[in-house]
Amino acid sequence: MALAISLLSGGLDSSVATAVAISEGYEVIALSFNYGQRHVRELEAARRIANLLNAREHFEVKLSLDAWGGSALTDVSIAVPTSGTSPNVIPTTYVPARNTIFLSVALSIAEARQAETIFLGINEVDYSGYPDCREAYLEAFQHLADLATKAGVEGRGVRLRAPLLHLSKVEIVRLGLSLGVPILETYSCYQGGDPCGLCDACRIRDSAFLEAGLPTFRRVV
Amino acid sequence: MALAISLLSGGLDSSVATAVAISEGYEVIALSFNYGQRHVRELEAARRIANLLNAREHFEVKLSLDAWGGSALTDVSIAVPTSGTSPNVIPTTYVPARNTIFLSVALSIAEARQAETIFLGINEVDYSGYPDCREAYLEAFQHLADLATKAGVEGRGVRLRAPLLHLSKVEIVRLGLSLGVPILETYSCYQGGDPCGLCDACRIRDSAFLEAGLPTFRRVV
Repeated sequence: MALAISLLSGGLDSSVATAVAISEGYEVIALSFNYGQRHVRELEAARRIANLLNAREHFEVKLSLDAWGGSALTDVSIAVPTSGTSPNVIPTTYVPARNTIFLSVALSIAEARQAETIFLGINEVDYSGYPDCREAYLEAFQHLADLATKAGVEGRGVRLRAPLLHLSKVEIVRLGLSLGVPILETYSCYQGGDPCGLCDACRIRDSAFLEAGLPTFRRVV
Repeated sequence: MALAISLLSGGLDSSVATAVAISEGYEVIALSFNYGQRHVRELEAARRIANLLNAREHFEVKLSLDAWGGSALTDVSIAVPTSGTSPNVIPTTYVPARNTIFLSVALSIAEARQAETIFLGINEVDYSGYPDCREAYLEAFQHLADLATKAGVEGRGVRLRAPLLHLSKVEIVRLGLSLGVPILETYSCYQGGDPCGLCDACRIRDSAFLEAGLPTFRRVV
């Protein structure tokens, strides 16, 4: 059975991307990070989702990105914005090089375990404007991965897959529902407590849930 | 004063690359990793070198790559080879995606601290055949870094510098001596104990030390 690594934060997108991998017949090693994020509660969701989706294994890697901060998610002195996204502005919830670090670790595990694919839940439609969620970024990482690894040099390179890249958030919700993802078990709020309904993650999620007829958090209707 | 991040393992090459950064007038944040390597002793050397070279700060990041192994350096059940390198064979001391992970973390710190340059000590002349020590790899990572970060998108991108890339090992030794690097304080042996003189790191280092008239380890003359 083909093996895939799936980046699983515990949020909606990564849970649906993981379910896509499983629906395609992959055995999945889920990969989550405890990186000093204020919403460490998402890790509990990741454990539940990995278990409910029958991931073969679940790595939870500790890496203290909060040692240098630079983001509202890893530095409690920077407030999480609650007034919505603006076009062409990268919000303070952007974590420097986070996806690059996560993909690098996924690449390492993929090579060590001879997995052929890495799944990740990035999408560039209904998103917060992060540079490392775009197709051009993904292509650049694929090129790097082909050159960086022994597996790549030997022609057994690891393929990156972002099945949600061009889906809207409501399409992601519907895809998740069709694949049996326990969507209400996922956790997306940046604040880390009971979902605030005001941060970008809650706003984007709630709009899609509303359109899909699912229950939303409290404050956004 | 311009700020640079320098990857500093505690070995010869990264120590010389760090000294190059300082000789060019950069304030340096040194970056080392405790990644489950059997030669964790190199970290003691990194601390000494960072101190002796007057690095402004020294991050020692813990990341357990030994959780999935795949290398003689992170899995004690795989022996470190002691019979020398072979052309076109990537040795078992290759650690899956290690430099990609290290550079990703360096990129994160560089962006958070607004450093303009990342120095690393890779070279593709007298080396062990690792894919992530080649110029094409470095160029691919530069392209990725420009796309991955908020700083890159906003035109304040981080520049990668590998000043040893095209130097032979003896040229690196001589450059280090000319810059006042405390070369005998560096540590390179893969085995992790007193230098074995037989692993690739010892062999390549000792040949260059011999040529430069420096004391070598015991077994290779």
